[in-house]
Amino acid sequence: MGDAETQKKKKKIIIDTDPGIDDAMAIFVALNSPEIEVIGLTTIYGNVYTTLATRNALHLLEVAERNDIPVAEGSHVTMMKVTKLRIASFVHGSDGLGNQNFPPPKGKAIDQSAAAFLVEKANQYPGEVTVVALGPLTNIALAIELDPAFPKKIGQIVILGGAFSVNGNVNPAAEANIFGDPEAADIVFTCGADILAVGINVTHQVILTEADRDKLQNSNGRFAQYLCKIIGFYFSYHEEAYCTKGVYLHDPAALLAAVNPSLFTYSEGVVRVQTCGIMRGLTIFDNTKKRYAEVTEWTNKPMVKVAVTVDAQAMVDLVMERLMNS
Amino acid sequence: MGDAETQKKKKKIIIDTDPGIDDAMAIFVALNSPEIEVIGLTTIYGNVYTTLATRNALHLLEVAERNDIPVAEGSHVTMMKVTKLRIASFVHGSDGLGNQNFPPPKGKAIDQSAAAFLVEKANQYPGEVTVVALGPLTNIALAIELDPAFPKKIGQIVILGGAFSVNGNVNPAAEANIFGDPEAADIVFTCGADILAVGINVTHQVILTEADRDKLQNSNGRFAQYLCKIIGFYFSYHEEAYCTKGVYLHDPAALLAAVNPSLFTYSEGVVRVQTCGIMRGLTIFDNTKKRYAEVTEWTNKPMVKVAVTVDAQAMVDLVMERLMNS
Repeated sequence: MGDAETQKKKKKIIIDTDPGIDDAMAIFVALNSPEIEVIGLTTIYGNVYTTLATRNALHLLEVAERNDIPVAEGSHVTMMKVTKLRIASFVHGSDGLGNQNFPPPKGKAIDQSAAAFLVEKANQYPGEVTVVALGPLTNIALAIELDPAFPKKIGQIVILGGAFSVNGNVNPAAEANIFGDPEAADIVFTCGADILAVGINVTHQVILTEADRDKLQNSNGRFAQYLCKIIGFYFSYHEEAYCTKGVYLHDPAALLAAVNPSLFTYSEGVVRVQTCGIMRGLTIFDNTKKRYAEVTEWTNKPMVKVAVTVDAQAMVDLVMERLMNS
Repeated sequence: MGDAETQKKKKKIIIDTDPGIDDAMAIFVALNSPEIEVIGLTTIYGNVYTTLATRNALHLLEVAERNDIPVAEGSHVTMMKVTKLRIASFVHGSDGLGNQNFPPPKGKAIDQSAAAFLVEKANQYPGEVTVVALGPLTNIALAIELDPAFPKKIGQIVILGGAFSVNGNVNPAAEANIFGDPEAADIVFTCGADILAVGINVTHQVILTEADRDKLQNSNGRFAQYLCKIIGFYFSYHEEAYCTKGVYLHDPAALLAAVNPSLFTYSEGVVRVQTCGIMRGLTIFDNTKKRYAEVTEWTNKPMVKVAVTVDAQAMVDLVMERLMNS
């Protein structure tokens, strides 16, 4: 098989990202995964504001010497145009990358918005593009608004988000990415696309330990070396918030769901998102066989896949391999 | 030990009820449980409207020849004064008791409202009264409104309600009793009383089978005989809604949590109820050890107990014994 053919068989990935320490890991894992081809990054607020997310996305591509990959800047506000955003700087540092004072990137984002870029790529490669959404879902909802056929043209949307049958991480109800823009999330979950949601019920099982960190430190991989510089802040946050000495691999887990879906098991059903009140941002997955007496807000909505189990050790091993082998 | 002393040691129970086929079972089990003394029934809408709940409560006490027990009629509307109620006649029949066309009771409810009765008994026997709440929580919330010290004077409130980490039974979010009056439920869950919630995550494990029904049919117990007359409707509903040939013992399970708490295990935390939007009536139990970055709507609220496991077979055996041994 020639190079062109190999390239053709690779799954095309767009990573929608708010880097973010675990976003950086996911991006590096993606760039070092022969099964996939990263055809673009789109940026969003979440771990940092969107402007900084764009800067960090460009910076990470330069670290990886992959400036050929386009970065499209995403929305600065939620679907309801809210500008007061919840930014998780306490998790990733005020620069999003462990407060390491990196120099600004040389490159620039393309002129297209994230939503326009998503729509263009879905039209260019219908059914072939997988979006791995690592932050609030505003850009994806805007792409659906821009082109109502987007859900049918996009190959798959892997959503890192939701807390299914477990407590949230922003509060007991809501997980951070869904909480960031609940209206967008409800639009995306019910849009009819092939959707796989990877929630914290699953990602909280995928833990990078201090021993793993030591292995990264002792490897010669440039991604491993870079990550060891920034990951201290993330470890400190986990010790403070969860009294644990490991860190959750949220974003790499979602990315690997696109690379190797067999590491997860899934259940299918309808997911809706609460958009008001004290449980704003809560995801409820209809996973019961019950015949309800009344028509519900879940009735006749499109089904999505929700990850329910994960081979956590295989997942960590794969992340480690991809980070050290570079 | 003399009779007076035995009586003194019995746990005093008030059953707040919307009979209801499984309410009838719970009331009969209670009346035949030597560990407890039923000091009153209070009535509420839910399985039937409140007027019919009162009629059925009086009727059931007459069937049991226990007309000495007072019945206090409860609220006809929710805390928000809503009169359009969700009545589960499709589960219990339009008369609440399997459409058996029973004659009207001879007795009458006392003049006191359910809320006033609850407050009076809590004051009369401070710390000694257990309320077993088998319907929407309006009466309990009204008792708290009537006497803010009620939560500290009542011994325990056992709540049959909530769907903890599982789908609801009204819709994927909400369980019927909480859905019936979410505002009342949030008041009760956060009132500071000693509360034990028994949700459908637990009661859906406590199943009366067709074989059990045959045993009831073949026993000479008058409670068993009566129940076999009314239970057909409840079996039909379960077959229709859940494709199962057994029935859930929701109300008897909650009643037995007051009689024999050791049949359950519990977890402690804060429960809040969603009162708006598509997840109105959803219960979220904060059961995580996470230190949230922000103050949440669960922060510094009183803890309650939530049942997490149940010895289902022992529970069914106990229900059967109490129903046949009469």
